[in-house]
Amino acid sequence: MHTLHLPGFTLEHFLEHYWQRQPLLIRRGFRHFEDPISPDELAGLACEEQVESRLVYRRDGRWQAEVGPFDSYERLGEREWCLIVQAANHWAPEVQALVEPFSFLPKWRLDDVMISYSTPDGGVGPHIDRYDVFICQGSGRRRWRVGARGNHREFAAHEALLHTDPFEPIIDEVLEAGDILYIPPGFPHDGVTLENAMSFSVGFRAKSACDMFSALADHLIDKELGNELLEDAGRPLHTQQGRIDGADFARIRAQLQSVLDNEKLLADMAGGYLSRTKCQLDLQALESPYEEHELAEALAGGALVRTGGLRCFYVDGTVEQGVCYVDGERIAFGPQGSSFVPVLCDHERLDGALLAPWLSQPAILAALTRWVNAGYWYLAD
Amino acid sequence: MHTLHLPGFTLEHFLEHYWQRQPLLIRRGFRHFEDPISPDELAGLACEEQVESRLVYRRDGRWQAEVGPFDSYERLGEREWCLIVQAANHWAPEVQALVEPFSFLPKWRLDDVMISYSTPDGGVGPHIDRYDVFICQGSGRRRWRVGARGNHREFAAHEALLHTDPFEPIIDEVLEAGDILYIPPGFPHDGVTLENAMSFSVGFRAKSACDMFSALADHLIDKELGNELLEDAGRPLHTQQGRIDGADFARIRAQLQSVLDNEKLLADMAGGYLSRTKCQLDLQALESPYEEHELAEALAGGALVRTGGLRCFYVDGTVEQGVCYVDGERIAFGPQGSSFVPVLCDHERLDGALLAPWLSQPAILAALTRWVNAGYWYLAD
Ligand SMILES: O=C(O)CCC(=O)C(=O)O
Ligand SMILES: O=C(O)CCC(=O)C(=O)O
Ligand SMILES: [Co+2]
Ligand SMILES: [Co+2]
Repeated sequence: MHTLHLPGFTLEHFLEHYWQRQPLLIRRGFRHFEDPISPDELAGLACEEQVESRLVYRRDGRWQAEVGPFDSYERLGEREWCLIVQAANHWAPEVQALVEPFSFLPKWRLDDVMISYSTPDGGVGPHIDRYDVFICQGSGRRRWRVGARGNHREFAAHEALLHTDPFEPIIDEVLEAGDILYIPPGFPHDGVTLENAMSFSVGFRAKSACDMFSALADHLIDKELGNELLEDAGRPLHTQQGRIDGADFARIRAQLQSVLDNEKLLADMAGGYLSRTKCQLDLQALESPYEEHELAEALAGGALVRTGGLRCFYVDGTVEQGVCYVDGERIAFGPQGSSFVPVLCDHERLDGALLAPWLSQPAILAALTRWVNAGYWYLAD
Repeated sequence: MHTLHLPGFTLEHFLEHYWQRQPLLIRRGFRHFEDPISPDELAGLACEEQVESRLVYRRDGRWQAEVGPFDSYERLGEREWCLIVQAANHWAPEVQALVEPFSFLPKWRLDDVMISYSTPDGGVGPHIDRYDVFICQGSGRRRWRVGARGNHREFAAHEALLHTDPFEPIIDEVLEAGDILYIPPGFPHDGVTLENAMSFSVGFRAKSACDMFSALADHLIDKELGNELLEDAGRPLHTQQGRIDGADFARIRAQLQSVLDNEKLLADMAGGYLSRTKCQLDLQALESPYEEHELAEALAGGALVRTGGLRCFYVDGTVEQGVCYVDGERIAFGPQGSSFVPVLCDHERLDGALLAPWLSQPAILAALTRWVNAGYWYLAD
């Protein structure tokens, strides 16, 4: 278990002064930090079809980028390249554990843990992200520079690599094992490797209005909602053929507004959408599935662990109905499951004792059995 | 020019008591009515690739439906079939003229003019529409029955034919040339032909919230709007990992609400979306395009006619900026074009004299030239 050490101030102070506002170097944020996975294991992950990976390197001074899977790295030499694996927390519980120290932020804001392995002078180049990130330095050393927010030009250094112009640094420091660099959205940054290095980026995501409206439109279509047609009985005689007048425009607006005013519908949309993962999960369906009573027995002495990266949320507006959203799917246990849902969603690990009071509810035992059999949760050994 | 005669009451009375509320048979709604196009011309239209057409018939008592284009009708015999052409007003100005008598309703509510040619005992069968329609009887005779609104079962009588169960009629009448049957959404109806008949359905459409949200989502994507990410600087320490709490949910909601509160954005979305046609337009691009000054000269003694079915609107919230929406496209003439836009959009025919005051505005003359050259408007002969 990793513990986050802030430089002489509280998490509340961090949230008030730094989160989303200012970058911060947290020296020795993790004490005695050791890479949760090795460079070799990382290279192995990047050979897998289901894992999203990238190589970034320079060839004759020009930036190059390739997407995985990769079968060998020998051609790359010893310098000026880096290998990046997205959502590495989906594939290794030791990486998922890196997420825990950041639980002062809600899980719906978390994106994933991205890992990079880089060689001397390697890195992805100067760029700007739309996400908050905690870059945790593992083995090796890298020099990180962060610039101020501003109107930085962005351009494609390669078709798959968005860079920004050189910038004046407001942070320019060498990171060593256990150092953490927090960078809010919009701050240009560039990490250049001094000695072969592992960097663990715990990334947070936020959605745009555009994303949310697409999700809302999809939700209405999928769930066959909002199908009532606009009504205009009692309309007055219209005289200007081409005019969409104030009264008609108000009708159209009211039709849209009535959906936004539907709190349960919005809760279902937001819960469903935000609980969907961007990258594939490592779902290991059981070859010999549990019967419900068998799972109940196994849980007596055991515990359930959530598969890395599984997103599982509840929303105030629907939790009284025992509703949770698991990997995009809405499950309703009814009012008698309303206290179970926070237990399920708030903990990465569910000890048998924590679950025991709920296993007598058939809907809950059935859902747990289905999830364990499909690999969403697994029994701790 | 067709004139609508209501049975002893005003259009205001119709709008108050019938529109969207009750079906109404308007006997001799059109005096001296003659088919604007002949059955042969209709059959010809249904041979064209760009025209949407359907055949509905019975074979051994079973309903059949086929989509066009069709190359012959001989196989169908003399009874129990009908040919339907959608948006026939796009292809024949004489059919477009049928829309004029309904100009007490705004054009944005209009859908199209669908024409059916049916043989004895032919028809599409008992069904329910989501649209308001004025079915204008041409040559021949048909018996129309309309039932009350209610919970009518719907089922596929054929994969492309949605029917409803037999219903108790509240209207059961034989229609002859010039009779008009108005049917609001939701009322089951069935027309059975007595003598080879032409029926002209002037249909009105309305959108659902689901349609409008899809359009809004597309609009945001196309115009690259609403891309700012949700921000949560200053958030408090979070303790329940799986909870999307009230404050976060309020942020998500406010993000969506800010788009709905943007009147100009909604006006552009609605204007763009509602001005798009469902069926193809008959756009005859000119082989020798006009130069701007040539068009101005031609207009001195002439007139522009809008191609049948072209949708061209303005919205109160943006018309002061001289904005109009033509076939899905937003055009802004600026404040100095704000009085031109209603002239353009309110009239199917634009006499040279009506246009003259505007032709000295370069943006307006340029747009008209572009539209005439592309076939959106054409010079009347
Ligand atoms: O590790 C790297 O080189 C890239 C890290 C980074 O830029 C990030 O996590 O935002
Ligand atoms: O002409 C027909 O048979 C079908 C007309 C009809 O049902 C309609 O216009 O809604
Ligand atoms: Co970055
Ligand atoms: Co109908």
